[in-house]
Amino acid sequence: MDDTEAARSLGLQIAAGLTRLRQARPLVQNITNYVSMDIAANALLALGASPAMVHAPEEIEEFGAFVDALTINIGTLSAPWVASMVGAAALAHRLGKPWVLDPVGAGATRFRNETVVALCAHHPTVVRGNASEIMAVATALGISRSTARPKGVDSADSTADAAAIGGDLARHLGAVVVATGAIDVVTDGTRTQRIANGTPVMAQVTAVGCSLSAITAAFCAVEPDAFVAAASAVAVAGIAGDRASLKSTLPGSFRTAWLDELAAIDTAAVTAGLRLA
Amino acid sequence: MDDTEAARSLGLQIAAGLTRLRQARPLVQNITNYVSMDIAANALLALGASPAMVHAPEEIEEFGAFVDALTINIGTLSAPWVASMVGAAALAHRLGKPWVLDPVGAGATRFRNETVVALCAHHPTVVRGNASEIMAVATALGISRSTARPKGVDSADSTADAAAIGGDLARHLGAVVVATGAIDVVTDGTRTQRIANGTPVMAQVTAVGCSLSAITAAFCAVEPDAFVAAASAVAVAGIAGDRASLKSTLPGSFRTAWLDELAAIDTAAVTAGLRLA
Amino acid sequence: MDDTEAARSLGLQIAAGLTRLRQARPLVQNITNYVSMDIAANALLALGASPAMVHAPEEIEEFGAFVDALTINIGTLSAPWVASMVGAAALAHRLGKPWVLDPVGAGATRFRNETVVALCAHHPTVVRGNASEIMAVATALGISRSTARPKGVDSADSTADAAAIGGDLARHLGAVVVATGAIDVVTDGTRTQRIANGTPVMAQVTAVGCSLSAITAAFCAVEPDAFVAAASAVAVAGIAGDRASLKSTLPGSFRTAWLDELAAIDTAAVTAGLRLA
Repeated sequence: MDDTEAARSLGLQIAAGLTRLRQARPLVQNITNYVSMDIAANALLALGASPAMVHAPEEIEEFGAFVDALTINIGTLSAPWVASMVGAAALAHRLGKPWVLDPVGAGATRFRNETVVALCAHHPTVVRGNASEIMAVATALGISRSTARPKGVDSADSTADAAAIGGDLARHLGAVVVATGAIDVVTDGTRTQRIANGTPVMAQVTAVGCSLSAITAAFCAVEPDAFVAAASAVAVAGIAGDRASLKSTLPGSFRTAWLDELAAIDTAAVTAGLRLA
Repeated sequence: MDDTEAARSLGLQIAAGLTRLRQARPLVQNITNYVSMDIAANALLALGASPAMVHAPEEIEEFGAFVDALTINIGTLSAPWVASMVGAAALAHRLGKPWVLDPVGAGATRFRNETVVALCAHHPTVVRGNASEIMAVATALGISRSTARPKGVDSADSTADAAAIGGDLARHLGAVVVATGAIDVVTDGTRTQRIANGTPVMAQVTAVGCSLSAITAAFCAVEPDAFVAAASAVAVAGIAGDRASLKSTLPGSFRTAWLDELAAIDTAAVTAGLRLA
Repeated sequence: MDDTEAARSLGLQIAAGLTRLRQARPLVQNITNYVSMDIAANALLALGASPAMVHAPEEIEEFGAFVDALTINIGTLSAPWVASMVGAAALAHRLGKPWVLDPVGAGATRFRNETVVALCAHHPTVVRGNASEIMAVATALGISRSTARPKGVDSADSTADAAAIGGDLARHLGAVVVATGAIDVVTDGTRTQRIANGTPVMAQVTAVGCSLSAITAAFCAVEPDAFVAAASAVAVAGIAGDRASLKSTLPGSFRTAWLDELAAIDTAAVTAGLRLA
């Protein structure tokens, strides 16, 4: 296949997944940070999934039994939540349900690194972070010697740097790894897809990345190939961003427009808008 | 009274309550979930009430003494918060202040059901949920045998199903019960009012229902008849939704427009816009 | 200097600080309330700073070592967070990093007052609150006998009343005190600047004040004179508000427009828009 044909083929797969997502309306449990709860729930609802924010230890087993997918995001981490995160991840793996790890701020503190290592022991389906976070996860797991420290939750590394380490990480974990940035890289250690959708203003709106992780979990619930599911989430969020940026490139109104476009995006928008790199 | 006259009469009552609310600017304490805090506080402010999110056990007694109404919402439940919720509910009842229970996700886990039962022992003024949640509360209290499990926090049951059980629940609790959906049902077990305002996109924006519960508490602070107060909240939120949907039916911009309309809504908008069913 | 010249001189200082802020992109740690997390993070990002919401006791020492400034906001206070707040404040002072205290709801409960006293022992760089909160802080510290109780988190006192006490408080703490209201007062106990920017709808949007405190921390990271830094934050947030109010004076769309204007504001907008009182 040449590039155009590859894009067309992937576009059709993504559009079909989006249609399935809206029909199935998967229930996505999110154990996520306080900053992203509002926008992540709204992003899932806009897209057509059903969000649930449930984190109490008393509920993990019972609630986890009937969700379709799980997102774990360590943004505003605290010890009481780590137990719930680990319990939910272990349960998801045991029940064969997809779960997505968003290692916000990995590398910034030992507490974050230890939590990432504990969570990775439970076989995430997808790990989604910015370049710095992906490199920090690899370092925490001992498969990379980089000790670059991220600048808060914003990435200080390029996606290109993360792509090679992302492949190593994916093979190590048996997971799909997504490193987002100007170019988003999706890899399962064998296949790699670079996606060029999205717009710089997305980095000026908090928790767009966290929302992408939740969207990734929603796609994993309806697409058994996690590589395709992760690429679909990246593409749909990015195409919605491209379309929103036609309305505004200022962060407040962009955020509103992005949620609108997640609801409005359809097969035609996906197939016309997908940009591979 | 014929239907038109009934609507006109209720419309005038609601408009009068709205005017009192804006004059009195009631202080509404909310012990609510992390997802809804932002939009619920903004909805109360937009409407003209004064929100306070206070949940520490150290503050419940002291702060509860000078609030005008209380909302308790179990969305992102955890054990440390349950103690504060129960303490605040008990205090509100003891002081004769109205309080509204929003049983988010009732029926989903034993922990939620037990918490609902513990809270209902303290005589909520209003219980507001979607149809599934209202039915789950009735089941948890042993006054209905339905074991339907809600799909996450979205309702799987119709409001019609919930109306009959809502009446039983209202009589059992001595409370007003509100089951929201395409048609909203308000009942105190004797009187029942169906309200047709509101628009489907409201279900695509997270925590609109939670915000309605907070608005209900605000109306209860200025309207001693809780049945009228609850109907007022449902009507005002729904009419604001109808007006917002003229600006946008996409979820991001609808949410913004809904908050705008909560601020802009006035007597004329209420009396012209009320739609009973 | 006459008034016009003073405004011109301050405008140039503020504009220079804004330029430095966007070049330096300071990392601002926020231990803040659940309501404000979303908008405060978005306000910092829109303006050009880098927000991080980190509160776990396990991370305070390690993370605090590489942040540029710190905001502590007691809005949704709870005991487990107080320890982190006090630890982070002590560390910031020890490391010579600026930190801003936002005493939300001070005066409402003993728990809040005790927390404010504990935090003030660690030498805040700036204390930012509404008039009632500033007066309550002064009372809690024993330098004012006012026992006026705030109405929830909304101010019941005028900024004028707070200005005199603000000066006393500033001298007592060796800090800059900002009392916001229709007119914002910035004082270090020697210098006082009144700023008239801003618009009434800002009081109808939750956590705009909390966001201002975070913005103040960001300016403190790039401007060593905390008095100028605090005045800069007040002016920039207010000018952005003035500009946003040209687009909308309804709270939902105003909030969106305010975030847009925080991103769009530039040297010309600052110097043209500054209004001293």
